[in-house]
Amino acid sequence: MKKYVIGADIGGQSVKLGLLDTSGNIIQTDSIKTIGGMGILSDINSAVDFILKDCGIDASDVKGIGFGIPGPVIGGQNVGVCVNIPDFDNFNLTEEFSKLSPLPVIATNDANAAALGEMWVGGGVGYKNMIFVTLGTGVGAGIIIDGRLINGAHGCAGELGHIKLNPDEPEVCGCGGRGCTEQYSAANGIVRTARRIMAQSDAPSVLRINENLTPKHIFDAAKDGDGTALETVEVFADCLGRALAAGACVCDPEIIVLGGGISKSGEFMLDFVKKAYKKYAYLETCKTEFALAKLGNDAGIYGAAKLALDM
Amino acid sequence: MKKYVIGADIGGQSVKLGLLDTSGNIIQTDSIKTIGGMGILSDINSAVDFILKDCGIDASDVKGIGFGIPGPVIGGQNVGVCVNIPDFDNFNLTEEFSKLSPLPVIATNDANAAALGEMWVGGGVGYKNMIFVTLGTGVGAGIIIDGRLINGAHGCAGELGHIKLNPDEPEVCGCGGRGCTEQYSAANGIVRTARRIMAQSDAPSVLRINENLTPKHIFDAAKDGDGTALETVEVFADCLGRALAAGACVCDPEIIVLGGGISKSGEFMLDFVKKAYKKYAYLETCKTEFALAKLGNDAGIYGAAKLALDM
Repeated sequence: MKKYVIGADIGGQSVKLGLLDTSGNIIQTDSIKTIGGMGILSDINSAVDFILKDCGIDASDVKGIGFGIPGPVIGGQNVGVCVNIPDFDNFNLTEEFSKLSPLPVIATNDANAAALGEMWVGGGVGYKNMIFVTLGTGVGAGIIIDGRLINGAHGCAGELGHIKLNPDEPEVCGCGGRGCTEQYSAANGIVRTARRIMAQSDAPSVLRINENLTPKHIFDAAKDGDGTALETVEVFADCLGRALAAGACVCDPEIIVLGGGISKSGEFMLDFVKKAYKKYAYLETCKTEFALAKLGNDAGIYGAAKLALDM
Repeated sequence: MKKYVIGADIGGQSVKLGLLDTSGNIIQTDSIKTIGGMGILSDINSAVDFILKDCGIDASDVKGIGFGIPGPVIGGQNVGVCVNIPDFDNFNLTEEFSKLSPLPVIATNDANAAALGEMWVGGGVGYKNMIFVTLGTGVGAGIIIDGRLINGAHGCAGELGHIKLNPDEPEVCGCGGRGCTEQYSAANGIVRTARRIMAQSDAPSVLRINENLTPKHIFDAAKDGDGTALETVEVFADCLGRALAAGACVCDPEIIVLGGGISKSGEFMLDFVKKAYKKYAYLETCKTEFALAKLGNDAGIYGAAKLALDM
């Protein structure tokens, strides 16, 4: 049995690369800048060669390489529309990488990869049915059923960020829709909600003096009891809780794991989301467990590696 | 290899029973009245014995019996809260039936069973990833991923009828929530919408003279161009389309199959739902195919039998 796997988490700015053993221990990592298109694949291949040489490991002892991609991936190989890396649009990633490397290749969406990582060695250990949500510049999610990722017929499984919660929303989401979860529960949406609330009242708030508001400012102020910040967090949680309750009406997971930058607000944030979820959850699904992600920025590396391990 | 399977579709009023061959052909059916609790199981067991004798088939040639239950079923055997058959509440159906019969037993929710039946020999033939929706007194659904039913950690997978579309809804759903899909897209909800629209305007409508309105009256009137009926159908389809688009954001199926009594309005109804779905669908999921169910009231028998076949 081969002893190692490689995970590559491709982002708009950089590729995070990891060599892991089959128990989920990271042996070595690397990070390379994203320069676009084929250049990325060639750079990743060189970095993989370097890591293996550096660790004295032969490629024949590596089961394969898994990729996490910031866009939909169909059938484990075809990338769909990839907003952050336009050169990847509608392109057969596994075929192209196989021209450079003898390693077996498989790919999935980055949120899916993170979900798999969290189930393997993170916040979802011990569970086989999970919704993992990553809360950052968007609201991404990965759905795991019986221990396996659901990719979807169009690579769009787990797009809970684009459930239409409020069709009357005047602003348009990045996807072209209106009232998506992401418009209220991702970073920009949270800041927008705070600004809306401040525009509608004269209540004093520490958020008023901050021109470069971030979700962190808002969650910190909410922890300190700032009324506007608390109201903003309520909106964030209400929308996310409703989307998660809808998700549970579809796949009814054992556990919901929250990750991504916004999850750094920890138990404080989680308590708001759990309360909102219970408000909207259907019957027994109100018993679904909740946990915070544990792997931070490395979730994608772990999950991409697990994907290769399960190939 | 065993040549036969039995499917039992348990409803609040009757149990529909079928003996099928492993290719999905019905050999013989029976229907028995539901008298509640253990009585049902003993009646089913007698009816199975009778069918087998009548067909000259030995029980040793039957792979097993599958049950479709009007309530959540956990792990293929434990029934949860069963509103229509209170004696089934929180009860281990497979264990109890095994006391009466040597046949291997497995159970699932009735909408799940119908989904499996439609995939096997009905509107979803040729697909492995499907949302099946049954539109009747409720909005039930079954989710199939890679050819297998998703039951959910609490037996609640596929409860698209209880996605909360409108938390501001003044009336309460049977589940205790507000603004569930079912409140707009199931039989009572459709009639209620028509009455709301009529109460809010003086527009003439053939529906006004009908004291015992049913969805069939409303769909028939809509086909004839009645304005109130058309507006009612728009609300039905808008809500169902939005719930299905949310479902596609979770599991991204290849096809959505619509069944149940309301689906008898056929292509006319389907066109409204497809249009609403596309309005709310996320990116590539707008390409999801749609079909009408083909098995009518027998879908549950077929699906329960398929469940036993896949045991």
